[in-house]
Amino acid sequence: MTKNIAVVLSGCGYQDGAEIQESVLTLLAINQQGANYQCFAPDILQLKVVDHYRQQEVSESRNVLVEAARIARCDIKPLTEYSANDFDAIIFPGGFGAALNLSDFALQGPDSSVNADVSAAINNTYQAQKPIGALCIAPVLLAKLITGAKLTIGSDQATAQAIESLNCTHENTTHGEIVIDKENKLVTTPCYMLDANIGQIADGANKLVQAILDLA
Amino acid sequence: MTKNIAVVLSGCGYQDGAEIQESVLTLLAINQQGANYQCFAPDILQLKVVDHYRQQEVSESRNVLVEAARIARCDIKPLTEYSANDFDAIIFPGGFGAALNLSDFALQGPDSSVNADVSAAINNTYQAQKPIGALCIAPVLLAKLITGAKLTIGSDQATAQAIESLNCTHENTTHGEIVIDKENKLVTTPCYMLDANIGQIADGANKLVQAILDLA
Repeated sequence: MTKNIAVVLSGCGYQDGAEIQESVLTLLAINQQGANYQCFAPDILQLKVVDHYRQQEVSESRNVLVEAARIARCDIKPLTEYSANDFDAIIFPGGFGAALNLSDFALQGPDSSVNADVSAAINNTYQAQKPIGALCIAPVLLAKLITGAKLTIGSDQATAQAIESLNCTHENTTHGEIVIDKENKLVTTPCYMLDANIGQIADGANKLVQAILDLA
Repeated sequence: MTKNIAVVLSGCGYQDGAEIQESVLTLLAINQQGANYQCFAPDILQLKVVDHYRQQEVSESRNVLVEAARIARCDIKPLTEYSANDFDAIIFPGGFGAALNLSDFALQGPDSSVNADVSAAINNTYQAQKPIGALCIAPVLLAKLITGAKLTIGSDQATAQAIESLNCTHENTTHGEIVIDKENKLVTTPCYMLDANIGQIADGANKLVQAILDLA
């Protein structure tokens, strides 16, 4: 039977939302491996808006769900409509949006809190014993919510230490590598937490999706 | 020697700018086929801004270059800095942005005009006898500028007739197919001008990039 994967986006653009290439290449990997996807995003304002050409914050206000809909070609639902019963797995692409909008990890580090809708989605999926994938910086969401999780964000030592301080285990990885936590059914990959190119992002996304489908 | 491909984006989101999936999968195809890319966009205001969740126009103002920088991860240049001498080929992904921002084809059809920076980029590349690729609706830019061009936008009859009325030849195509105009060094593919899925977009982008590299 065709597996259904939920993909949670955090906006549209890596400096204030979802990393676009990681998001698109996750959707591509799901399609190419014979599964279906449905995109979700929390219906909340972005913490900030960044001009990606000048790389500076601007005084605008944008909504995470509305911007994420650009990546999803309008086919996206508010995260409150996600139910673990309806899906075989859930995946969180990266981008600073995961640490600005889905949580405040970028500001608070290990003392951060996770958005309530995101928390509910992760906790319900975990309790249903279904796999959860996270790319780039998004594994910090899992570190906050799943004690004892084994994760990777690549090799950034400050972030790795923050994850370890939350009673989780961090494993260093490089391009295209994944870490599988079989016990907790978690799969993570570093993507643009490393200085990577787009082909390396596709490698990581492909391997992550394959491992997620194997666990589902 | 590694080939260098310019990719011209028209914003970020298919209803008012560049189709994100077509753009990312063009960049991926270029990387996976061993070439380098540099993104460009015109430094102009978008014709409109569309809320992609509610699918309705909103009263906001956004800049094509600034929004396109989201797809390019900030590594993008104003189209005025493009020189055909520096590149082996140029590619235009689709999205309504090609017919709203790069030209006004969506409003004027065959009577449309092409943005001056876009015109200069296409004309200079054509005169330098280097290949030009266009996905989705972007082939209408070539129809306006290159008399006798052989192109495809899929099978939409109104758009095909508009192209034919410009003294060009339209060939019907389906998912993943490309049309190569060897004489004019043009390669086109329908992508989301058809009711497609993301895997089919990757197929079309891969074949287009391969044909472009063969011609370059």
